[in-house]
Order: sequence, then structure tokens, then C-alpha cells
Amino acid sequence: MIKVFGHQSPDTDATGAAIVWAWYLSEKTGKEATPYVLGTLNKETEFVLSRWNVESPALLESVTAGDEVVIVDTNNPQELFENINETTILEIIDHHKLVGGLETPGPMTVTMKPLASTISVMHGLMGDIELPEHIAGIMLSCILSDTLQFRSPTTTPADKDIAEKLAAQLGVDIQSYADEMFAAKSDISDFTGSGLVKMDSKKLEIDGMNLRVSVIETTNPASVLDRKDEIVAAINEVKAAESDVDEVLFFAVDILNEEATVFTYNDTVKAIIEKSFNVTVESDTEVLPGVVSRKKQIVPNLKV
Amino acid sequence: MIKVFGHQSPDTDATGAAIVWAWYLSEKTGKEATPYVLGTLNKETEFVLSRWNVESPALLESVTAGDEVVIVDTNNPQELFENINETTILEIIDHHKLVGGLETPGPMTVTMKPLASTISVMHGLMGDIELPEHIAGIMLSCILSDTLQFRSPTTTPADKDIAEKLAAQLGVDIQSYADEMFAAKSDISDFTGSGLVKMDSKKLEIDGMNLRVSVIETTNPASVLDRKDEIVAAINEVKAAESDVDEVLFFAVDILNEEATVFTYNDTVKAIIEKSFNVTVESDTEVLPGVVSRKKQIVPNLKV
Repeated sequence: MIKVFGHQSPDTDATGAAIVWAWYLSEKTGKEATPYVLGTLNKETEFVLSRWNVESPALLESVTAGDEVVIVDTNNPQELFENINETTILEIIDHHKLVGGLETPGPMTVTMKPLASTISVMHGLMGDIELPEHIAGIMLSCILSDTLQFRSPTTTPADKDIAEKLAAQLGVDIQSYADEMFAAKSDISDFTGSGLVKMDSKKLEIDGMNLRVSVIETTNPASVLDRKDEIVAAINEVKAAESDVDEVLFFAVDILNEEATVFTYNDTVKAIIEKSFNVTVESDTEVLPGVVSRKKQIVPNLKV
Repeated sequence: MIKVFGHQSPDTDATGAAIVWAWYLSEKTGKEATPYVLGTLNKETEFVLSRWNVESPALLESVTAGDEVVIVDTNNPQELFENINETTILEIIDHHKLVGGLETPGPMTVTMKPLASTISVMHGLMGDIELPEHIAGIMLSCILSDTLQFRSPTTTPADKDIAEKLAAQLGVDIQSYADEMFAAKSDISDFTGSGLVKMDSKKLEIDGMNLRVSVIETTNPASVLDRKDEIVAAINEVKAAESDVDEVLFFAVDILNEEATVFTYNDTVKAIIEKSFNVTVESDTEVLPGVVSRKKQIVPNLKV
């Protein structure tokens, strides 16, 4: 049984890509495969699975040497298990920067493309096959999620084209369906401050400084900003608890107005934001107009 | 202008893959691309280019920050330029183990498959397009070279199928063409001892020991074995000159009899060969029956 899974802090693309690729392997190649997730689903992903009547993948808490695995939506060992390189990695399908560090004894299949979602890469790999409704629905959702309904600068014509074809097949109106998805994502009432800090967060190192870059994408930024004190307290707890994190950069991305508000809660973070985005920070938050994508607009600009 | 190139110590697959992909980019995608090699061609590759009337790619001696490059037949930064990560790596197409270490600011396209040759991976990427004779000829040659005419255990049904289709298109008899290629490869009269040690050589580290694993594939093993003293002298010069090489393992692979003779010229190398291949070494060479593939049969067994 092949285990298919994406990164920790699963989002809609990581979860959907595991579901879709396990379906493809099982149904189209005759290899038995099961999708898994490496953490709690966010509200958007829960909405998407419920909308298309798909069960949540089981939580995978560990892997064992010799497990056959397929890794989707990441190629970063730090976003997986400590012993990931003891497994037999059959395949990696991803759309992020090549990080390196995933190793397996023999050659494996790796497919990475600079598209907005892992699902778009898979769409190319699967070729022209018939997709059952629930698979097409999951795929459409992943593309709308990762592109913020084509607003993100990561969006390519290929992503838009695939999403529009899937929506046509399903008879789904993209605008109203995306509104529903983003409304679900924006309901953060169930999450603690620390839950919000870790919900969609990536660790990276810039010039020797270890950062967590956390993003909340929302159509209701006030629901995040109103909890600023609680979130900053949680950030300080995370920093104290994680020896490999020096600072946390926390961005509330306003999907509809296409801007990000970053929490500039101490002098180090203020200096990083000033240097990175060429702004003068005058309070404990800073609005960055036009910024919606961690991958294209935040991480490439970071200077410490 | 995109620069397309493979690894140092270019072989037929590295050279042919650069030629074929530069052709594909230029002719089929409208992107201007030029193939390069990172070292002197071996005799087999010279024969192949001459047979299909293709000019040798120019020698690339350095790359400059910002160069747009496509890397084929390797994903190992140590087989490229020291400043390779300052270039803009657009794409990697390979069939080796994922090593990690190649990085570029944004996401890039990476395609790796466990097939016997890079050309087989490219064949899948190009889809069903018409191939001019010289391109089909180069592609056939790369597959025959990397599979040792389907003898190597790296050979998959897909490699064989692609080669047979190309041979049929070209009206080439695989047996006699491969004989010509391997005869060309076996003419080592122009090479010095040190040239033979470095002709087809990969550096790797096993449990803290830095090894060069050199292979000469030949239909005339006597031509290598008769030069043993000269080659061992060259090995000792290479070890003295390269601070990152502790020992050199030198294998003469007899293509037709499907066996390798390894030079066991000192006690350390003797111990490595005994431990790795479960043999008792009694002289300064050891014959390893059935061993023809560095990737599948030598490297995975190495223990120091």
C-alpha cells in the first residue's frame, strides 16, 4: 500500500493533491494507494471535502523505514517526518522551489513545474482522462485555493485554463463557489492564537536567521486583526518553544482587497519588514498593498 | 539564449541530451537554446555525432550569474560549476538519484524518472512529435550507450521500446550499430592513464570517505588491463592532486561478457571491495561477474 501525503499544516492543495493522486494510482495504474494528511484540516479544506462528499484522509503520525510513499505539494524534508529518508520515496510531485534533502536509495520520479498548484502539475501528468465528479471538484478547489481565485501572481494561464474546464464540466460558477470557499476559510473562530500562527506557516532560513512565515488568507481581515494581542502572545510562545525559530512573520492577507497586513510586534521584525518591503513602519502593524503571495511576493523579498 | 548542458566528464547521454533538448526548445517551443558540453568528448560520443552529422557542442568553461540554463542528465551541483546556483535554472531533466543542492530563486521545472537514460525521460516529455533523422539517431545512441544495448540492469521496458521504435524509424540494425558504438568507445589509445581515470568518473561520499568511482566500459578489456601499472600510477597522482578524493575505485566493465574487473591496488581499496561485494581479494585485480552498472550494482553496494 503506497502512502500519499503532502506537507505538515495541510492546506487544500496538499490535502486535495494527496486524495487525487491516490485515486489516480489506484484507479488508473492499478497500484494500491491511500491518501493521508499530516495535521488538522483548515476550515476551507473541510468545506471542500464536505461539498464533494469526500472523506477526510486519515492523519499520518509517523512513517516506518521501508514504507512506500509518494510526496505531494512539497519537496522539503523539514515539512515531513524526521525519518522520511528511511522510506522508499517513489515519487515527488510539487510546484515549489527545489530545496533538496529528500533522498532515497534509487532514482525516483520527480515532477515539479512552476504552476500555481500541485493539482495543475498532476493534471498534466494524468493526461486526457475522464474525471469523476468528486475528483474534478477537489481539483477545481485546489486551484481556486492556491491562486486565490486567480488573484495571486503565481497564477499562470495553464492554471486558469484547467480550472475553467473543470468548472464547466461540473457546472460550477467559479465566482460563487470561490466565495463560499473563502468564507469557510475566513471562519477562524475555532482556532487559538497559536493555531492561527501555525495554520499556514513555513519555516525558512535567511542569512542565518530562522524564520517562520505565517499567512492567514481571509475575506474578513478584521477577524484576524481584532485578535492581534492574542496572536502576538502566541507568537512569543512559539518562539520560546521552538529552538529553530528566531522570529515569526505573521501576515493577514485580505483576499478581496489584495493586500497584506503584517504584525510588526518588535524591533527586529520592524527592521526586517522595512528592509524587505522598502517601507517605514510606524506602528505595530504595516499594510503592504498588493501583497497576497508568500511564494512570489513575501519570501523572495525577505532581507534580515 | 538558454544554455543546455549535462555533467562534467560528458558521456553520450549527457551530450546527446543537451543536443536534443536544445533542438526541442528551439524548434518546438520557440525558445532560443544552445547545447554545450563541460569537457572533452569520449570516442563513443565522437563516433555518434559523426555518424549523424551533428557538430560537437561547444565547450562551456564557466557560467555567469543570471545565465538562463537547463541542466540535463544530472542534478548534482558537484558535477557542474561552483557558481551554478547563481544562474537562473529553468529546468532539470534527469534520471539519477535526487541529490539536492541545486537551487534557484523561483520554482523551476524538474522532471526525473527511473529510466535508463535521460533521453528516455525527454522522449516522454516531447510526446508524439516528428523527429528529424539526426535527432532520432542521437536519441537511439544515448539509449544504447546508457543501457549497454539493454544489458545493464538499469534498462526498463520503456527504454527498450523507445530505442526499438527509433531504430525502426531510422532503418538501423541495433546489434550492428551498437557494435560500432562500443568498438569506438573501446579505442582508448588516445587517452593517458589520468584521462582514463577521469573519463567516466563520479565523486561520492560513503560514511565520511570521499571516493571517485571510475568506470571504463569496453568490448576489449585487455586494452585496459594491459595498462594497469600506468593507470594505478595515474590514480595515485589524482589522489595526491584532489584534496576531496580519498580513494579511487577503478572498474573495467567488459560489456560483452558482462563482468567488471576492479583494480585492488592497495589495502584500503581491497578492504572496500571485499566488504562491498562479499569477495576475498587475492591479487591486485578482482573480477566481479555480472557487474556492469555503476548506478545499480556498484554504488548501492559500496561499504567502507
